[in-house]
Amino acid sequence: MRWIRASKDDKTFYGIVEGDRIAEVEGSPFAEYQRTSRMHELKAVKIEVPVIPPTFYCVGFNYTEHIMKVAARTGQPPNLPTQPDVGQRTNNALIAHGEAVVIPHDATDAVQYEGELVAVIGKKAKHLSEADALSCVLGYTIGNDVSERSWQKSDRTLWRAKSPDTWKPMGPWIETDVDLDALETIVRTNGQETTRFRTNAMLFGVAKYISTITRYITLYPGDVIWMGTDGSSPNLKAGDVVDIEITGIGHLVNPFVAEVR
Amino acid sequence: MRWIRASKDDKTFYGIVEGDRIAEVEGSPFAEYQRTSRMHELKAVKIEVPVIPPTFYCVGFNYTEHIMKVAARTGQPPNLPTQPDVGQRTNNALIAHGEAVVIPHDATDAVQYEGELVAVIGKKAKHLSEADALSCVLGYTIGNDVSERSWQKSDRTLWRAKSPDTWKPMGPWIETDVDLDALETIVRTNGQETTRFRTNAMLFGVAKYISTITRYITLYPGDVIWMGTDGSSPNLKAGDVVDIEITGIGHLVNPFVAEVR
Repeated sequence: MRWIRASKDDKTFYGIVEGDRIAEVEGSPFAEYQRTSRMHELKAVKIEVPVIPPTFYCVGFNYTEHIMKVAARTGQPPNLPTQPDVGQRTNNALIAHGEAVVIPHDATDAVQYEGELVAVIGKKAKHLSEADALSCVLGYTIGNDVSERSWQKSDRTLWRAKSPDTWKPMGPWIETDVDLDALETIVRTNGQETTRFRTNAMLFGVAKYISTITRYITLYPGDVIWMGTDGSSPNLKAGDVVDIEITGIGHLVNPFVAEVR
Repeated sequence: MRWIRASKDDKTFYGIVEGDRIAEVEGSPFAEYQRTSRMHELKAVKIEVPVIPPTFYCVGFNYTEHIMKVAARTGQPPNLPTQPDVGQRTNNALIAHGEAVVIPHDATDAVQYEGELVAVIGKKAKHLSEADALSCVLGYTIGNDVSERSWQKSDRTLWRAKSPDTWKPMGPWIETDVDLDALETIVRTNGQETTRFRTNAMLFGVAKYISTITRYITLYPGDVIWMGTDGSSPNLKAGDVVDIEITGIGHLVNPFVAEVR
């Protein structure tokens, strides 16, 4: 099943995507819902961020090649994690499929994408074993963890390098039927392939992260966990378009534009 | 004005505290509201977390003495920030005044409080000058940034050291009439004073932080910014009670209990 959050005529609703049509529901996949008889053409709605999370979790350093590239870039030894520690991002930065990423006027050239698998929590969860961990997942979507590498190096925290307004595209929808091992992440910049990796070739997978987090933290319906990225990105500039595909889920496409002051 | 969020008879509402009574409102201080004729005794309601923030910001290393204590504890040189970088915490951990902080069974003895001033955002804000920054603040409350010092040292991120369920007491209410320079923070452990500092003796004050954050990030109504702490804390154990007073705002009091497995 493919859950979409969309708007039309000033109304925002959840729906189920069926081919190029949407069956509108009353309620949401995170609570009660009921399918209605209202059908929409997919191309006739505005796609919205699939969920505004109560807490926005994000994993760093979860793929070997990415860690090696970071080490080369910063001149530090590779920081290979020995346990799954999770971080956070901020809701101000969320935008939907199709919306523009705005590059602040004082960013350096080193603005880059990070294509990420996003696990969307569907049920309240605490103390899940690794074997049971995926039972709390509603489905998966795609995230672009846009990053400014000079600020990532200079600042004590990631707030400016990762969380400016519009820097967290997420979508286009939540796919519930996913075979994690079959997924491939493919990023295209202006139509040219610039990154490709096996999505599930993570140091610590989704189940391991959820099992670890829920030892101490209750996950709530709508919480999201961005699972980190592999490979590297070219530097992006205004006018570029980034298309992050995860096979079996879809494409998250966003143009980059310059801040208007 | 003193805003409280409270519940009674399965209903949660905002109200205005007047002495030992509450005037219930329809709506909230973050949107439209209207005072009702319903009055409650303060002692007859359950005090709730004053707001569930869209994003939960938290400042570290914002008082000189605290930075020196951290340096002594970790054996690292003092990390005196040169610019105001902000971090985040997670909503799962929020509890109200009076509720219990639960110590996980595998925490070390080094569970400590951090008494903090909390700025509560009342209006959407972007690109505020330092002179105008406080115009977006609805008021101030109190936070206890409970921390486990061994996990803070061992983990790559602060998720386990700072964000277990129940580890972010916040309240008891939001005070809108505050003279920041007059505030004093006083922490009492089991009735004995264990920390005292001038609340506004920060490296970077509330206005400086808001002005800096809003260069890149839109702040939204209900967002909170925890402003860091000074001094140090004794190690806390089940049975202890921590009372964080900020003069002119109130007392945030929480017992500590052991996890029941």
